Amino acid sequence: MADGAQTAIYYEAIADEVVVFEHAYRNRLPLLLKGPTGCGKSRLVEHMARRLELPLFTVGCHEETSAVDLVGRFLIRGAETVWQDGPVTRAVREGAIVYIDEIAEARPDTIVALHSLTDHRRALYIDRTGESLQAPDQFMLVASYNPGYQGFGRELKASTRQRFVSIAFDYPGPDLEARIVRHESGCDEKTAERLVRLASKIRNLVELGLTETASTRLLVHAARLIQQGLPPRAACDSAVLQPLSDERDTLRALRDLTALIF
Amino acid sequence: MADGAQTAIYYEAIADEVVVFEHAYRNRLPLLLKGPTGCGKSRLVEHMARRLELPLFTVGCHEETSAVDLVGRFLIRGAETVWQDGPVTRAVREGAIVYIDEIAEARPDTIVALHSLTDHRRALYIDRTGESLQAPDQFMLVASYNPGYQGFGRELKASTRQRFVSIAFDYPGPDLEARIVRHESGCDEKTAERLVRLASKIRNLVELGLTETASTRLLVHAARLIQQGLPPRAACDSAVLQPLSDERDTLRALRDLTALIF
Amino acid sequence: MADGAQTAIYYEAIADEVVVFEHAYRNRLPLLLKGPTGCGKSRLVEHMARRLELPLFTVGCHEETSAVDLVGRFLIRGAETVWQDGPVTRAVREGAIVYIDEIAEARPDTIVALHSLTDHRRALYIDRTGESLQAPDQFMLVASYNPGYQGFGRELKASTRQRFVSIAFDYPGPDLEARIVRHESGCDEKTAERLVRLASKIRNLVELGLTETASTRLLVHAARLIQQGLPPRAACDSAVLQPLSDERDTLRALRDLTALIF
Amino acid sequence: MADGAQTAIYYEAIADEVVVFEHAYRNRLPLLLKGPTGCGKSRLVEHMARRLELPLFTVGCHEETSAVDLVGRFLIRGAETVWQDGPVTRAVREGAIVYIDEIAEARPDTIVALHSLTDHRRALYIDRTGESLQAPDQFMLVASYNPGYQGFGRELKASTRQRFVSIAFDYPGPDLEARIVRHESGCDEKTAERLVRLASKIRNLVELGLTETASTRLLVHAARLIQQGLPPRAACDSAVLQPLSDERDTLRALRDLTALIF
Amino acid sequence: MADGAQTAIYYEAIADEVVVFEHAYRNRLPLLLKGPTGCGKSRLVEHMARRLELPLFTVGCHEETSAVDLVGRFLIRGAETVWQDGPVTRAVREGAIVYIDEIAEARPDTIVALHSLTDHRRALYIDRTGESLQAPDQFMLVASYNPGYQGFGRELKASTRQRFVSIAFDYPGPDLEARIVRHESGCDEKTAERLVRLASKIRNLVELGLTETASTRLLVHAARLIQQGLPPRAACDSAVLQPLSDERDTLRALRDLTALIF
Amino acid sequence: MADGAQTAIYYEAIADEVVVFEHAYRNRLPLLLKGPTGCGKSRLVEHMARRLELPLFTVGCHEETSAVDLVGRFLIRGAETVWQDGPVTRAVREGAIVYIDEIAEARPDTIVALHSLTDHRRALYIDRTGESLQAPDQFMLVASYNPGYQGFGRELKASTRQRFVSIAFDYPGPDLEARIVRHESGCDEKTAERLVRLASKIRNLVELGLTETASTRLLVHAARLIQQGLPPRAACDSAVLQPLSDERDTLRALRDLTALIF
Repeated sequence: MADGAQTAIYYEAIADEVVVFEHAYRNRLPLLLKGPTGCGKSRLVEHMARRLELPLFTVGCHEETSAVDLVGRFLIRGAETVWQDGPVTRAVREGAIVYIDEIAEARPDTIVALHSLTDHRRALYIDRTGESLQAPDQFMLVASYNPGYQGFGRELKASTRQRFVSIAFDYPGPDLEARIVRHESGCDEKTAERLVRLASKIRNLVELGLTETASTRLLVHAARLIQQGLPPRAACDSAVLQPLSDERDTLRALRDLTALIF
Repeated sequence: MADGAQTAIYYEAIADEVVVFEHAYRNRLPLLLKGPTGCGKSRLVEHMARRLELPLFTVGCHEETSAVDLVGRFLIRGAETVWQDGPVTRAVREGAIVYIDEIAEARPDTIVALHSLTDHRRALYIDRTGESLQAPDQFMLVASYNPGYQGFGRELKASTRQRFVSIAFDYPGPDLEARIVRHESGCDEKTAERLVRLASKIRNLVELGLTETASTRLLVHAARLIQQGLPPRAACDSAVLQPLSDERDTLRALRDLTALIF
Repeated sequence: MADGAQTAIYYEAIADEVVVFEHAYRNRLPLLLKGPTGCGKSRLVEHMARRLELPLFTVGCHEETSAVDLVGRFLIRGAETVWQDGPVTRAVREGAIVYIDEIAEARPDTIVALHSLTDHRRALYIDRTGESLQAPDQFMLVASYNPGYQGFGRELKASTRQRFVSIAFDYPGPDLEARIVRHESGCDEKTAERLVRLASKIRNLVELGLTETASTRLLVHAARLIQQGLPPRAACDSAVLQPLSDERDTLRALRDLTALIF
Repeated sequence: MADGAQTAIYYEAIADEVVVFEHAYRNRLPLLLKGPTGCGKSRLVEHMARRLELPLFTVGCHEETSAVDLVGRFLIRGAETVWQDGPVTRAVREGAIVYIDEIAEARPDTIVALHSLTDHRRALYIDRTGESLQAPDQFMLVASYNPGYQGFGRELKASTRQRFVSIAFDYPGPDLEARIVRHESGCDEKTAERLVRLASKIRNLVELGLTETASTRLLVHAARLIQQGLPPRAACDSAVLQPLSDERDTLRALRDLTALIF
Repeated sequence: MADGAQTAIYYEAIADEVVVFEHAYRNRLPLLLKGPTGCGKSRLVEHMARRLELPLFTVGCHEETSAVDLVGRFLIRGAETVWQDGPVTRAVREGAIVYIDEIAEARPDTIVALHSLTDHRRALYIDRTGESLQAPDQFMLVASYNPGYQGFGRELKASTRQRFVSIAFDYPGPDLEARIVRHESGCDEKTAERLVRLASKIRNLVELGLTETASTRLLVHAARLIQQGLPPRAACDSAVLQPLSDERDTLRALRDLTALIF
Repeated sequence: MADGAQTAIYYEAIADEVVVFEHAYRNRLPLLLKGPTGCGKSRLVEHMARRLELPLFTVGCHEETSAVDLVGRFLIRGAETVWQDGPVTRAVREGAIVYIDEIAEARPDTIVALHSLTDHRRALYIDRTGESLQAPDQFMLVASYNPGYQGFGRELKASTRQRFVSIAFDYPGPDLEARIVRHESGCDEKTAERLVRLASKIRNLVELGLTETASTRLLVHAARLIQQGLPPRAACDSAVLQPLSDERDTLRALRDLTALIF
């Protein structure tokens, strides 16, 4: 799961997130990234890993992620039993960033297993092997969660949140977003500007009651399809509108909106 | 689970689904097919696999499908432990389409395991073996789900949906549907036309409160029974009406409707 | 679980179920039998298996039946691991009818595992062994479910039901039922006629709110006890009334009814 | 679990339960005993086993009883895997009565595993070993359940109940109950008569809302304590009243009642 | 878990519990102790074990206690599988008292496994080993439960309760309680008397809505802290008040009460 | 998990917690620390461990912590099975403090397994190995829980709480808190004083409905970021405000508050 490529990752800072990230790293404090889907949280982590010249381990959490998935497990291989480090253990050993995506989804033992890494101890205790690892200065724990999901799944306990320095994300401003769409899809300026306009309109349509709104990622998908020759309305339908809703009426409203722009 | 037969698959396009599918493939974007039962989603995938000359792996999801079912597992065989690739892993290795039917039914770890395949990384990380596979250009991930089921089982998280380009399906128009029924059953034109008329009437009977309505598949079943000599009303009863309801009153209404046509 | 005896099975057709069954078999379509307890669904399947000269495998489903129970599993025997075919796999290999009783009770993976056997593919994919079996023309999948149970346990998804040709069952008419009771118990004509009269009265007593009503099976039990010398009222009490209710008042009403006949 | 002792078991018939039991056995029909706690269901089964000169296997069911507990399992012993017959399998092999106490408590697969033993097949299919056993004439399946528990735990499905001939139990009449108490405890006639009077008064106290009322078993316990020298009121308190309630007011009312008799 | 020490255990009888306990033992009847936390149930059992010169095995039950925890299990040790007796099995083999604390908390199979030990059979059937043990006269089964917990966790089924002779416990009278506190802590008469007065006041404060009230155990803790030199109010706060509540207002009321006495 | 460092741990006593802790230790009574997140419970335990010159074992509990995690387990390593002591067992063997953090979160068997260590027996019974360990005088069991979480997760049973001497924690007074912040971050007096003023204002903002309020830990984080050069408002935002809420309005109110101070 370690991402070994050494080329820089394109990232445009929205606010002071790069500065706070670096300060948290220098202070050896764990960091929590809060924000909606597709706003660039993972991208920031990749960018910072390159910038700080640290290896990066990523773990996507879900309802059944447990401590064992992060720390490691014994595997039976024929007559032998071998210990396999999990991504957190590997990051501690190697001095790396470990990025725990959607941490609030994980089972509760997951977070407790990280307690000693997130306070003054900065140590990892591996019950099963009896090993105790002191994290090097290069180790950093970064987690993300989506506040919009609160009430849907598991919440992050208040006592857990207080262990992290936190950064709140939002979508980039229009100019910045158009620049990102162009960079990622290779589309022309006008298409990018129109897509950002469409997203901005959709994001303001509070009365549609969408669970999530159009992310930058959707705009990039649409731009790539347009760039390859798909008519803009068909591209927006498949890449932006259909992912947002299944309701006939909602889709009709979104299509009307699209028709005003493309 | 790979479907190796190389003959073309009969498929009649309803809208621009073939074009969007091909664009998604060329852009290496994952695709989500949305629509009701028996409207031809699986058929489209088989058709496109033949057309693009790609092998096809199919996985039917249910409430207990987990990442292990897609990615693979260690099996104990006597004193040996052998790794067995799951269908997604095989599709990545071989450069194939993997079709994940009813993805919303699967356990949440299933979708998270596919994250790195559905974004710019296009990579599969296999925790258990430590292997990391880069998907070739020939690899494509296609998933389906039935929006009519929302509220019954698990829903697809908004953040998951935004990872896919999406196509919405509906039943074909009458002429096209009659052509499909004839092609699949070998029945005569009149029978096909009558069956399509019956389906169209049933689909408009909103007041019956059916969970799902008559799909093209049901018409094909009835046409095959009629073609083999079963009287049309008995064939419609067994192949179309009984599958739609167990309520005496509903069935009586549906039978009255059938009697007007056959 | 294969029922190898080759003698014919006594079965009296109520409507056109024998004809539809045979047409479904000739068209290689899966069949669903819908109806209440003890109305002869299993008997029809046994009868048709003999008539079509096919082996029969029967699986009774319950809340914990899973795909593994139908398809097969690896068993550890000492140092060896052996694969054991489940009843569906055996039926596919041998060209037999597999009868899946009360399919709606089974766990959801059960039905998904049968998908490829119930559509145009007619194939069984065994994940664990990597084997792919094409069903011979002699293979037929028959399932049953009891619509009266809907709302109590699991329901059959609409998309599953549309995979099957369906037959709805009800209790036989009085003359036919008396003939069945006599045949199965060896009792005299008068006793059979009286028992059928009792059943008919009970079935009309909607105001008692019984979950299920007197099946033909209960009448056969009573007839056998009477035939062996138990007084008719005691036989009806033990074999018909007590199985239907535990409520004092309901039982008193049922006993009064019995006293009018015996 | 087989009860091998060959001495007769004391049992006083309340109604025609001995006759119906014997008829069910002669007709090879499964039997269901319905009734409250401590009314003698288990005792009747033991009595009939001795009378019919059959071995007896008893299984007490609870929420987690499964088919495996009845039919058998593979056990790993060192490097060997050995099959261990469950009580139902042993009863089928040896021609015995198997008594399944509180069958409604068991998990649903338990009852389905017994289906083929409770209809015309009278056969046991053991999936795990592939074995198929035909039950000898000496085999009888008896089950019990307590209708008063309906609504608390699992219910017995109507389709299951229709597989059994049923006998309903109630407490014995006063003279018979006093005789049983004397026989079981060795107490004098007067004590037995008073205890039965106490039980009768408690059973009529519907307004106390007791979940269950005083069973014959409780009277026997009290009689034994009295016989050993404990003062009657203390004996009734410990053996009859305290087991019925924890409510102060209820216990006071029950003690007042006792004081009127002892 | 056997408590082998042979010194007498200090116990002051509150009512006739010692006499009833001994009668139950002499009659080979199982015993159920009902009462609140810290009122001396466990102490009575230890006392009686010494007095009757029997070994004692204690099992604390919780939501996940199962029959296996009481009866025994196979353990895998390297290549060998060894059977390990549970505490009930050991008590049956050795002729001992087995004390099952908070039996209502245990899983349902636990109680069913004890059925044959709690009726006329007095036998233990070990499914896994096929062993059948007849309990010697020295064996006694004692269980406890806390009626105040009914409605919070699992309840004891009425049919289970009727298997036991029962004793209800309450807190001791003031003189007796002061004597116990002095004996257990070595504190002076005045301190003991004041602590009992405090407990008595707290027990009468029904309007505070405490889940449980001050037990004798809490008084002993406070007395020990006072005896070691902690100021009485601090000792009462830590040992009596804080364990009873987390509510600021309740604690203030309790502290006011304490200030009136100390 | 044992914390072997022998340097003193900085701790400033808020009330008489150090004295009560020491008395509980001298009396061999178990101790329960009650209080909100980040108020210094863990720090007190570390401090006392150093002061009493005892090793310290820490266990963080979560919803799936079970007795096995505390007491130990058999691990399979190749062909061998080895017993691995859990932290409680190690603390008993070595004469140490074992600190069970957030004990109310653990599964119920966890607490029952500790019963014999928390009463006059002071013994640990290890079922799996049959071992019985008497705790030395140096052994002490300390647990913590957060009363503010009652109603969210599991509660601590009243009968469990009565086993412990308890200490209630709250945040330190302003002078003490500023001293702690300075000591932990190395920041200047003015910054510390301002951060404490901010915390005090936030703690009084009951109308914001925060689940937890600003702990001392958050102030230390902010002080460290400021000390490293991050502007105070950005530091407070990331380290204090964002961890407390995701609500836009709440955050705006908190930022306004911060702007009044920095």
